[in-house]
Amino acid sequence: MKINVVESVLKANDAVAQANRQRLDAAGILAINLMSAPGSGKTTLLEKTIAALGRPGCCAVIVGDLQTTRDAERLGALTAQVTQINTGTGCHLTATQVAAGLDSLDLKEIEYLFIENVGNMVCPAGFDLGEHRRAVLLSVPEGDDKVAKYPTLFQPADVILLTKVDLLGILDYQSRKVYEDLSRINTRAPVVELSSKTGQGITVWLDWVQQQRCGAIDAERSSNQRRPGS
Amino acid sequence: MKINVVESVLKANDAVAQANRQRLDAAGILAINLMSAPGSGKTTLLEKTIAALGRPGCCAVIVGDLQTTRDAERLGALTAQVTQINTGTGCHLTATQVAAGLDSLDLKEIEYLFIENVGNMVCPAGFDLGEHRRAVLLSVPEGDDKVAKYPTLFQPADVILLTKVDLLGILDYQSRKVYEDLSRINTRAPVVELSSKTGQGITVWLDWVQQQRCGAIDAERSSNQRRPGS
Repeated sequence: MKINVVESVLKANDAVAQANRQRLDAAGILAINLMSAPGSGKTTLLEKTIAALGRPGCCAVIVGDLQTTRDAERLGALTAQVTQINTGTGCHLTATQVAAGLDSLDLKEIEYLFIENVGNMVCPAGFDLGEHRRAVLLSVPEGDDKVAKYPTLFQPADVILLTKVDLLGILDYQSRKVYEDLSRINTRAPVVELSSKTGQGITVWLDWVQQQRCGAIDAERSSNQRRPGS
Repeated sequence: MKINVVESVLKANDAVAQANRQRLDAAGILAINLMSAPGSGKTTLLEKTIAALGRPGCCAVIVGDLQTTRDAERLGALTAQVTQINTGTGCHLTATQVAAGLDSLDLKEIEYLFIENVGNMVCPAGFDLGEHRRAVLLSVPEGDDKVAKYPTLFQPADVILLTKVDLLGILDYQSRKVYEDLSRINTRAPVVELSSKTGQGITVWLDWVQQQRCGAIDAERSSNQRRPGS
């Protein structure tokens, strides 16, 4: 009985996620779901990203937190298109919450939607929000053993961002272990070593983001061309 | 319907937690549930704690992770009384898992049981495991905004450990913000500024742990003395 309920919740979430994705595709928006432990640097990276990606309004953010609007306030200094969702005791965003977030944004202005999930390495991984890509952050101070411990997060990632690499010389941390663990569960996602503090890796990340949107739009166009009768 | 299922799951968990606590009380064991985000330093602190608390076997650990036995292997070098619970996709330990963990330990040898929960600032807070005290860790690199964002974790904490304080001079971090946020949600729990690397605060933590056990045993004795007919 418990399992049935969980299954039907997931099925309902997936249907809304699919509708979100269609809505985003129709508007030509690339959506990236950012997931990580609390404090890995998601909001700081988004500050740098929005500032770098160009004209105001091209980037939107839906940000999830249990409480407070602090992240939305920080990001609101860079783009007007920010929606904060407070989940209360909820440990992850849901597709329905993202759908409500989309209602509050002016979609025709947007090229990139960043969904900053609740800081949690477990629960967000199980919920499709309608995103096109998943970016998983892992900060150096969290330790070099986290990929193997949280495989459900890292396995479906489309890009993995090793953040706060400016601390590499200070902490007892062996990047080699992270790459070894990744070689067992995800060899598809590029790994970007990144520091929002020094700027290291930021352009690599920005290039990846922009390439994904071009790729997504090309795929959408060719799928439209292939449609019978179009 | 969904809510009913969740409520009955919580009620069943609470009953098992209560039985765990009675079993621990009968054996004179103090149980501390350690909760935090991934990578805040729970295992490293337990290594220091077990090494400092004296004779082998007086400390036991039940450690939860989605995958791997890495933490149990690290702690197994310090005490034979270690049980690793792999939760698979489970985002927190449950009282039933802890009950199974107790079955695997030699309770008459133990004075302190440390339960190292799954690294997650949301879900573990909702589940009583039968512990006597809750210790919540918050590492400096996670940022100074986490207390307000995750109040469900910090509100019921009995002690709050600010870990990795050796990084205070290196990172952009204002301890003042943490104390301000705590002043709104939890003024009861002492805050210990701690570094497993430099040793700062470790004796304060150890003193707190030992005081809790003395307090718990005194409370149990006086409760026995008050029982009618005893």
